[in-house]
Amino acid sequence: MQSWSDYQQQHKDRFLNELLELLRIPSVSARSEHKEDMQRCAEAVKTRLLEAGADTVEIYATAGHPVVYGEKMIDAGKPTVLVYGHYDVQPADPLELWHSGPFEPTIKDGKIYARGACDDKGQFYMHVKALETLVQTNSLPVNIKFIIEGEEEIGSPNLGIFVKANKELLKADVILISDTAMLSINTPSIDVGVRGLSYIEVEVTGPDRDLHSGVYGGAVANPITILAHMITSLHDENNHITIPGFYDDVVESSAEERAELAKAPYDEATYKKELGVKELWGEKGYSTSERTGIRPTLELNGIWGGYTGEGSKTVLPSKAHAKISCRLVPNQKHEKMTALLIAHLKKIAPPYVTIKAEEHHGGDPYMTPVDSIEYRAAAKAIETSFGKLPIPVRGGGSIPITALFEAELGCKVVFLGFGLDSDNLHSPNEKYDLVNFYKGIETIPYFHKYYAEMKQ
Amino acid sequence: MQSWSDYQQQHKDRFLNELLELLRIPSVSARSEHKEDMQRCAEAVKTRLLEAGADTVEIYATAGHPVVYGEKMIDAGKPTVLVYGHYDVQPADPLELWHSGPFEPTIKDGKIYARGACDDKGQFYMHVKALETLVQTNSLPVNIKFIIEGEEEIGSPNLGIFVKANKELLKADVILISDTAMLSINTPSIDVGVRGLSYIEVEVTGPDRDLHSGVYGGAVANPITILAHMITSLHDENNHITIPGFYDDVVESSAEERAELAKAPYDEATYKKELGVKELWGEKGYSTSERTGIRPTLELNGIWGGYTGEGSKTVLPSKAHAKISCRLVPNQKHEKMTALLIAHLKKIAPPYVTIKAEEHHGGDPYMTPVDSIEYRAAAKAIETSFGKLPIPVRGGGSIPITALFEAELGCKVVFLGFGLDSDNLHSPNEKYDLVNFYKGIETIPYFHKYYAEMKQ
Repeated sequence: MQSWSDYQQQHKDRFLNELLELLRIPSVSARSEHKEDMQRCAEAVKTRLLEAGADTVEIYATAGHPVVYGEKMIDAGKPTVLVYGHYDVQPADPLELWHSGPFEPTIKDGKIYARGACDDKGQFYMHVKALETLVQTNSLPVNIKFIIEGEEEIGSPNLGIFVKANKELLKADVILISDTAMLSINTPSIDVGVRGLSYIEVEVTGPDRDLHSGVYGGAVANPITILAHMITSLHDENNHITIPGFYDDVVESSAEERAELAKAPYDEATYKKELGVKELWGEKGYSTSERTGIRPTLELNGIWGGYTGEGSKTVLPSKAHAKISCRLVPNQKHEKMTALLIAHLKKIAPPYVTIKAEEHHGGDPYMTPVDSIEYRAAAKAIETSFGKLPIPVRGGGSIPITALFEAELGCKVVFLGFGLDSDNLHSPNEKYDLVNFYKGIETIPYFHKYYAEMKQ
Repeated sequence: MQSWSDYQQQHKDRFLNELLELLRIPSVSARSEHKEDMQRCAEAVKTRLLEAGADTVEIYATAGHPVVYGEKMIDAGKPTVLVYGHYDVQPADPLELWHSGPFEPTIKDGKIYARGACDDKGQFYMHVKALETLVQTNSLPVNIKFIIEGEEEIGSPNLGIFVKANKELLKADVILISDTAMLSINTPSIDVGVRGLSYIEVEVTGPDRDLHSGVYGGAVANPITILAHMITSLHDENNHITIPGFYDDVVESSAEERAELAKAPYDEATYKKELGVKELWGEKGYSTSERTGIRPTLELNGIWGGYTGEGSKTVLPSKAHAKISCRLVPNQKHEKMTALLIAHLKKIAPPYVTIKAEEHHGGDPYMTPVDSIEYRAAAKAIETSFGKLPIPVRGGGSIPITALFEAELGCKVVFLGFGLDSDNLHSPNEKYDLVNFYKGIETIPYFHKYYAEMKQ
């Protein structure tokens, strides 16, 4: 029997080329003009899963973009791993900041540059190639199921419905997700938590039409100015969020947990330099890794109003808009937090304006216990391929569906992520290092092996 | 000799059709894609001036859009009136709010709907038709010069250069401008002042690229939030502008002036209803007409940053932008105020961000003395055609070139405006009432007549 590493070494160029082909499909879930690309991408995922050795693969239509489900069942007596990933990607704009086309994947300095290279096509595809490795070397130790969805970047609005309706189909012992980052290739780590998310859009309306800023300026409230006031009031001078009740459900981390988190390597000068900022910002009383890991946040994701074109227009606009999202930590619930945020914005709006606010999407935070066999199997797999034990860390991002997975399917989720924070997720020039891609394909079979052993 | 009113009555339909033709040209000075339309519009103005009886008309190239100059000189011993107007218009967007195409002029309920209908094609064209009336009825009492520019809506960046280089050509006794509004067709008024303008654009940069708001949110300052803080700090709780030195040069109006201004008809309920707002806003201690007339203001004309498209994107943006303009009153100078505004924004920017700010355009405020023969000739002309004396009011808008006209050409400017505040200048569905258009054509010849008489 050929070894895993020999098989992977022999087929590495094909593995890469298959990923590049997937990256060429502009599967942007947020934009309706990409509806056909989404279908095309789902079909490509189906084809690849079948080629890799899945017994059956189906594309399930939803009210939004389709879900791809596939499985390789070998023995009802063996444990079942459900791999979750997503084939949809974030919008690529601002396009002018990309060095190469976001959907024309380019290899440079050992990195794949493309939208979705890391998030999440490059990462879920490692699982497809891990399956192929195990099947081709006749060494698959578990049943494997795949659920690859097309709406993660818009908050998985239809996946919950699908999961609830297909509990038997999706029945598994553990859910394995590669959609997070590690500290570095030399300092492997595992995210033991992801934050939840409440994402809303608010519209502030002043006068019922755009006005001449000379004729009416000074006498009618400007919705941009009012929106700026409202945004400003959401943080106090210590950068605490001011919404009454916002922190009520937060489980404060213990001194031990904070001490453990503080062990992760961090150099402020490097961090600042890497982002091009002179000073860091954040909630008083917490370190950078705490601010991005264990604390909830409120960020402005977008703002617009009035004249935003070339040159000048002397207008006092009728409307101003903002996209606002909060990251949530255990034990905050996104439905409650979204309602709290919307109610607060309506409450603080002065009588000069009217407010409309709507939810875009949301999800609850999730934590994997470090003493669970799910975590331990992942840690041992990394130790085997990296030669050192991973550090448990708290991730800042969100995978909205994870909490629902546990609630509906009754099994733990473990995050086996191989990205890097510097991969420019959601930014121009998203990339994924080839070494991480191949290291992931190398590591995943060990997870299946150790998990099967520990689960016996 | 045919009477003025008989001649105008006989040709009124043609007058209107000529204006509609001019309104069909999308002469948007702010947008480079309309460069050819600007040239086409200048040529149309030239043709119409020659047809109306001008002896010579020239199109002068500038570093930007061309200036049209024309004249009808009858007698060096008679006074010369220089008519100023502009053939450029504001951008038409948001297009979806127009009920008919902005460049497909439509007559409805006695009003012409089109971008530029009032500001300023409809108004300067009254002067062309007034010239025709005087020439065709052999009754021109003055020499008339026309300077119709193409850059008023972008702050006349090249007109000052043209004026300074052509003082002899433009030599006149008075400058007459129809680019303002009256209170109503039943309450004629004359703007005795226009405000100055300082218009800038500011860019706030945080991290050097858009970041994932989960991975970095809470640890890196968000430029939208910072910009919102900066905007908020520009007004205090009484809506006074907080920029140190901002009010230093303001000439406070006397109690008598304020009492005089308060005589203009004003009904708050009607004003609010007309704008669709529940409450008015403004600087404490001043009435609505004072806020828009005698007080300087600071307004946000546009804001943008981050993701502004459909759906959601969890981004912590690299940049946020705003367009900000101040209206200035006597004795504020726009160059000083622009420098003050930019310096203040740079000063209040926190160390998390870097600031770039640039001037878009500016102009000084202007006042016409009510005891001047220029004002009195205008008032008497209105009294003749409207049957009642106009009320002197302070206009809120700006005509950036007026102060420079007086400084360079050494003569007074008088505003003989026939628009209405409700004409949706700079807004969707700009309109000009036919009755105002024809009333203007009726009134202007009387100005020339009375001015010639008073100047003797």
